Amino acid sequence: MPELRYDPFKERWVIIATERARRPEDFEVQIEERKLIVCPFCYGHEDKTPPEVFSIRPDGSAPNTPGWRVRVTPNKYPALKVEGTVEREGVGLFDKVSGIGAHEVVVETPHHDLSLADLSLEEIRDVLIAYRERILDLRKDVRLRYILVFKNHRSQAGASLSHSHSQIIATPLIPIVIVQELSVARDYFLKKERCILCDIIRQELYFKERIVFDDGKYIMWCPFASCFPFECWLLPKAHKHDFAELTDGELLDVARALKEMLLRIKILLNDPPYNFVLHTVPNLVPRPGKPEYWGTIKYDFHWHIELVPRLTKIAGFEWGSGFYINPTPPEIAASLLRDVKLIL
Amino acid sequence: MPELRYDPFKERWVIIATERARRPEDFEVQIEERKLIVCPFCYGHEDKTPPEVFSIRPDGSAPNTPGWRVRVTPNKYPALKVEGTVEREGVGLFDKVSGIGAHEVVVETPHHDLSLADLSLEEIRDVLIAYRERILDLRKDVRLRYILVFKNHRSQAGASLSHSHSQIIATPLIPIVIVQELSVARDYFLKKERCILCDIIRQELYFKERIVFDDGKYIMWCPFASCFPFECWLLPKAHKHDFAELTDGELLDVARALKEMLLRIKILLNDPPYNFVLHTVPNLVPRPGKPEYWGTIKYDFHWHIELVPRLTKIAGFEWGSGFYINPTPPEIAASLLRDVKLIL
Repeated sequence: MPELRYDPFKERWVIIATERARRPEDFEVQIEERKLIVCPFCYGHEDKTPPEVFSIRPDGSAPNTPGWRVRVTPNKYPALKVEGTVEREGVGLFDKVSGIGAHEVVVETPHHDLSLADLSLEEIRDVLIAYRERILDLRKDVRLRYILVFKNHRSQAGASLSHSHSQIIATPLIPIVIVQELSVARDYFLKKERCILCDIIRQELYFKERIVFDDGKYIMWCPFASCFPFECWLLPKAHKHDFAELTDGELLDVARALKEMLLRIKILLNDPPYNFVLHTVPNLVPRPGKPEYWGTIKYDFHWHIELVPRLTKIAGFEWGSGFYINPTPPEIAASLLRDVKLIL
Repeated sequence: MPELRYDPFKERWVIIATERARRPEDFEVQIEERKLIVCPFCYGHEDKTPPEVFSIRPDGSAPNTPGWRVRVTPNKYPALKVEGTVEREGVGLFDKVSGIGAHEVVVETPHHDLSLADLSLEEIRDVLIAYRERILDLRKDVRLRYILVFKNHRSQAGASLSHSHSQIIATPLIPIVIVQELSVARDYFLKKERCILCDIIRQELYFKERIVFDDGKYIMWCPFASCFPFECWLLPKAHKHDFAELTDGELLDVARALKEMLLRIKILLNDPPYNFVLHTVPNLVPRPGKPEYWGTIKYDFHWHIELVPRLTKIAGFEWGSGFYINPTPPEIAASLLRDVKLIL
């Protein structure tokens, strides 16, 4: 059983994936990308993955057969497991919790050689629908406190298969990055009765220098304190706390903006490795004894997508200090990204 | 001028290295290791670096000539600059501080092909003496609040030159990782009147399963909640808050333990890329109006070295959640590291 372990000195949780314990020899070969004779994500290879939990099949074809446009299956090598109960245990000064959760793969297209940026608006919208439907379904499991959707593009960004896919990990704890954002957003709202990201968007649209585009509904923005060169965020201009509440029509608008963001990054930086992460609200299950637990979350949290191209290495300084050194000022990054010529 | 910028939503600082602004083409070639005709860290090439700020020269040779065993120079491409004053400025909702600081390189040996683990105990002690002397000297500059010593071994861990070296970055703010450790250590001490790491060491020596070695003065330990496979820490068994207070004799003990730690990692994992970071107390300058600012730090903080082999990639999930997924339980890592046969 995987475990979540807590370090009281660092005040952080880590997932110890005990079931796929890796020994020294497993790390020795730094494989560029797993060279598989059969790609398990291609059409006709549906039996190479665990049975699908969601798919979009315009032709009404049967599950686990060809005919799909987007397909979601459990990860064959999950970091966390669905079965079991959340057991909490102390180990001297330390704490552990059983590694309950879910780990799924969203296969974004049946085509082996297309990347997300290359898909049509409707196809990207279908990927976003898959994200939404899996978030909504996983939230029914009240043990799961957060559903994280993310994408690793290319092996240097952590993708172990080259066929375009995203991942979903649902955890029995709210991850610390999200806890921190929720806490800041709530404190800001309680003080000013405004959403902090709405305020930042207003200011940045006024300053202009870090905005890449504003399509009326979404902005692509290089954050003032970007940790990485060409880091960029996609933000809805209208306040909205939860990605999972978007309609199919609204997701088409997200798809249009996301495609433009991905294309600008791809063209300017020569199809770089990247990670993106969807930031949305946690699973808002009621907490016994804390009826006001979620308080003002509908008004204070603002969903968005954060993307980091992987151009620099995270080295000892970043690890030891928490400081990132970014050699490309976001104003320069935004200016170069704005200048990319797109034919959409 | 480089800048430190603060993100009020993420509550984190980042260094924007404005003077070496890198454009897309600078990232395109992923150079394995900078192939230089002349290595600036080798004997006889002392004029290829900025003038040295410290060296150990048993033969009494002149600065910036051959004859040294360890040599410290300013980094030719510093992330932060020494000249100037600490200017603080608001930018709408954001904050920035001028990028005052120091960035130095510790060349650990004149020999191009030796790594730190290969050096003799006395040579490793000399490297540690260089760390200590530079920390003590940089602390005289009260603008500098923290002196971080770290090492990137091999290009995959961020080293841009293959000749064995460590780095020192002094910042005008205490890095968040250290702020967090200081805060936890202080709270623990105020509650229990004991040092948290002393307590952890006692417990772990009793449990044994995560201890790699105990040489009487130092332990090598794989943390209960290790973020990375084969992560390991070197901790003094006797409580001590500040590495910079160690005598030359005491540093020989550190050198012995450090060499053993590095050799065990090198042998078991086939000379992997790694980062290590020295965790010690900040620059304890008095703060106006806060006479008790450093309070119980001598009793609550425990210096140590944290080492992470770089065997896995940091991907979207880690970046987006703050959760690390470690596929090697520390009990297995410690057991394998214990079993390494060493001839010392």
